[in-house]
Amino acid sequence: MTRPAFATWLSDTNDVTQTFLAAGQIPGLINLAGGLPDPVTWPVDDLSKLAAKAVANHPAEALAYAPIDGLPILRDLIAARFSVPGLTLTRDNVLITTGGMQALDLIGKALLEQGSLVATQSPAYLGAFDAWRPRLPRYRAMILEADDFDPVQTLAEAQFAYTVPNFSNPSGRLVSLAQRQALVGAAHRTGTWLVEDDPYGTLYYDGAPLPRMLTLSGQQGGHPYDGPVIYLGTLSKELAPGFRIGWVIAAPEMIAALVTAKQGSDMSTSGLCQRIAHDAISTGLTDRVLPGILDLYRTRRDALCAAMAAHLSDLFDWEVPSGGMFVWASARDSRLNTDDLLQVAMAHGVCVSPSSVFDPEGLNRRSIRVNFTLNDPETMIEGTRRLAVAAREVLSREV
Amino acid sequence: MTRPAFATWLSDTNDVTQTFLAAGQIPGLINLAGGLPDPVTWPVDDLSKLAAKAVANHPAEALAYAPIDGLPILRDLIAARFSVPGLTLTRDNVLITTGGMQALDLIGKALLEQGSLVATQSPAYLGAFDAWRPRLPRYRAMILEADDFDPVQTLAEAQFAYTVPNFSNPSGRLVSLAQRQALVGAAHRTGTWLVEDDPYGTLYYDGAPLPRMLTLSGQQGGHPYDGPVIYLGTLSKELAPGFRIGWVIAAPEMIAALVTAKQGSDMSTSGLCQRIAHDAISTGLTDRVLPGILDLYRTRRDALCAAMAAHLSDLFDWEVPSGGMFVWASARDSRLNTDDLLQVAMAHGVCVSPSSVFDPEGLNRRSIRVNFTLNDPETMIEGTRRLAVAAREVLSREV
Repeated sequence: MTRPAFATWLSDTNDVTQTFLAAGQIPGLINLAGGLPDPVTWPVDDLSKLAAKAVANHPAEALAYAPIDGLPILRDLIAARFSVPGLTLTRDNVLITTGGMQALDLIGKALLEQGSLVATQSPAYLGAFDAWRPRLPRYRAMILEADDFDPVQTLAEAQFAYTVPNFSNPSGRLVSLAQRQALVGAAHRTGTWLVEDDPYGTLYYDGAPLPRMLTLSGQQGGHPYDGPVIYLGTLSKELAPGFRIGWVIAAPEMIAALVTAKQGSDMSTSGLCQRIAHDAISTGLTDRVLPGILDLYRTRRDALCAAMAAHLSDLFDWEVPSGGMFVWASARDSRLNTDDLLQVAMAHGVCVSPSSVFDPEGLNRRSIRVNFTLNDPETMIEGTRRLAVAAREVLSREV
Repeated sequence: MTRPAFATWLSDTNDVTQTFLAAGQIPGLINLAGGLPDPVTWPVDDLSKLAAKAVANHPAEALAYAPIDGLPILRDLIAARFSVPGLTLTRDNVLITTGGMQALDLIGKALLEQGSLVATQSPAYLGAFDAWRPRLPRYRAMILEADDFDPVQTLAEAQFAYTVPNFSNPSGRLVSLAQRQALVGAAHRTGTWLVEDDPYGTLYYDGAPLPRMLTLSGQQGGHPYDGPVIYLGTLSKELAPGFRIGWVIAAPEMIAALVTAKQGSDMSTSGLCQRIAHDAISTGLTDRVLPGILDLYRTRRDALCAAMAAHLSDLFDWEVPSGGMFVWASARDSRLNTDDLLQVAMAHGVCVSPSSVFDPEGLNRRSIRVNFTLNDPETMIEGTRRLAVAAREVLSREV
């Protein structure tokens, strides 16, 4: 008796996410690899009360199957929150998803056949590759910072372009206003959908937020919004990940396709979690906790960069990010393979993310992504010290 | 400017689910089409308290990203709950899903390439077709009640066989012990995976539950369970749908494949909802509410069947189901096309599910699925009366 073969794409996965998860079980290991919030930022008492009230006062929303596209009150709230002068959104522009990740899965289902072309910012979020792998797409890299970057040529013939304009995962890079305008212009000209994945859009530590591409594209659009941007938001970074609440804002025809995909994916997102999300936003709870989150993470960003300057400046180059959750550092010596570094670093009790997992072709082996939101400064100082020891060990083997 | 084409499978959907959802908005329409629980069965006060405690006492579980495969305490609880003499389960046999629907999506991702063969009980749950449509499989019908049904021949070369042995959706049919044994035997012999979808497994109104195919297959298995059955359970019918909590019980190699698929689907299921599910089961809440649910739905099953006997006995044949949520009725006159009936019935203020949506080839146009869990007896009596008027109108057009 032989069992049926698993689908082809399953043999194409990398096991880095599993390695990271296993790392969480190793006593004493310092985890600078993930993208987790510090639980101290969660308003536990407020959320406990909201959870109780959601069930007691709104059982028909909290305990029933929610509509596939989400609770109308939450869709209306998201539409209002993201409407600005020049961009008018209605509930027909909004789909509630089970976390931001589900939006990526639904986009893949709605737009990709096997071998379809996707243009992605490079390096790019490994979770997006996870989401699209079952459709086995081809990737075209968008190197936004390259002198010869041509947005129209890059977007042409792609089903969609994938970007994280605010503090991109993994690079921490902020896409400039001029580049945002160029991408929106190219999307209008080519017809290609432009995915604006924005989990870190509230995490600006040093200045005022740049306009969203959604907003920039709306100024040419009608009502309801009918432009090329597919905007993805999430409650995970603003409040807490455990609710698994995200949202898509897009043209009604795109929302309708994603709703059909969601119908066969999980039917609907938890009504309880949607009601809590609505109440947390509408009562101002998310706005009240944000300043504390920004103060904490700004301090930690500075602490990590200071620790890196002390321990890693002869080994890596990096730019200080003005927001988000990560510092992206590239080895000065091209012989420092960061896949090897991960293995050695784990033996030394520290874990970072190697660049290979953020490259659809797995070719970039020279960089690391370092998180600064989860650990206190002392832990990050010790982590960077261990990382320096590990990097020297890897290099000494190469000599 | 032309926008990229949507994926092919999207043009292959039927719009019946959308019709049903729209039906919910029509004032005065009696909805006998859905598969919804009566909200009166929800223990609102208990669940409100559990929700508050889940956040306040277990924020690290409720508010964080849960592990992809689920909270260990909930996986252990499910493993223990489904272990019986001859079947020993561990947490490695269990994956927590975002409702039962997600399990179907993950099975499709893990096992289907375009054009792969699936054997399904016929008629079968339309949500399963929704889940697998993006993979564009071929279907082979399993007519379990046919005299010449050959389980080995039917399962041979299929990636998996899909069954709902307890009160199948839509037919309400209970698969006999002998048929369960035959299916398990055929799965062992052919190697084909055997999906046992069991949302109605607790809803037996007239007798003791038959053994699960999971249990029957475990008696030949090792420890942890390594057999061919992929068992799907859900909290939606036992407690409430709004938590979106389901579970898969299967061989560890299957669980591992489904976990990889889930990683790119929604990362993890809400920790808050998982913690509430754990506490509701472990404190005995689900066991305490079950007798009330059974009494209510048994009474309603009897009320619907009495109303049908009064109004529909010259138009339809049916068997009284011994559990579940549905009566399946077939027109005595083959000219009574039930797709046409749905349209006319909606004009008369009643909605039922036509058989075409439960047939992968859409050929069966002679039957209807009638729900008895959502409405009180008076409403069901009026609904069947309206349905009889509509059926006579359709037939009169045919003459």
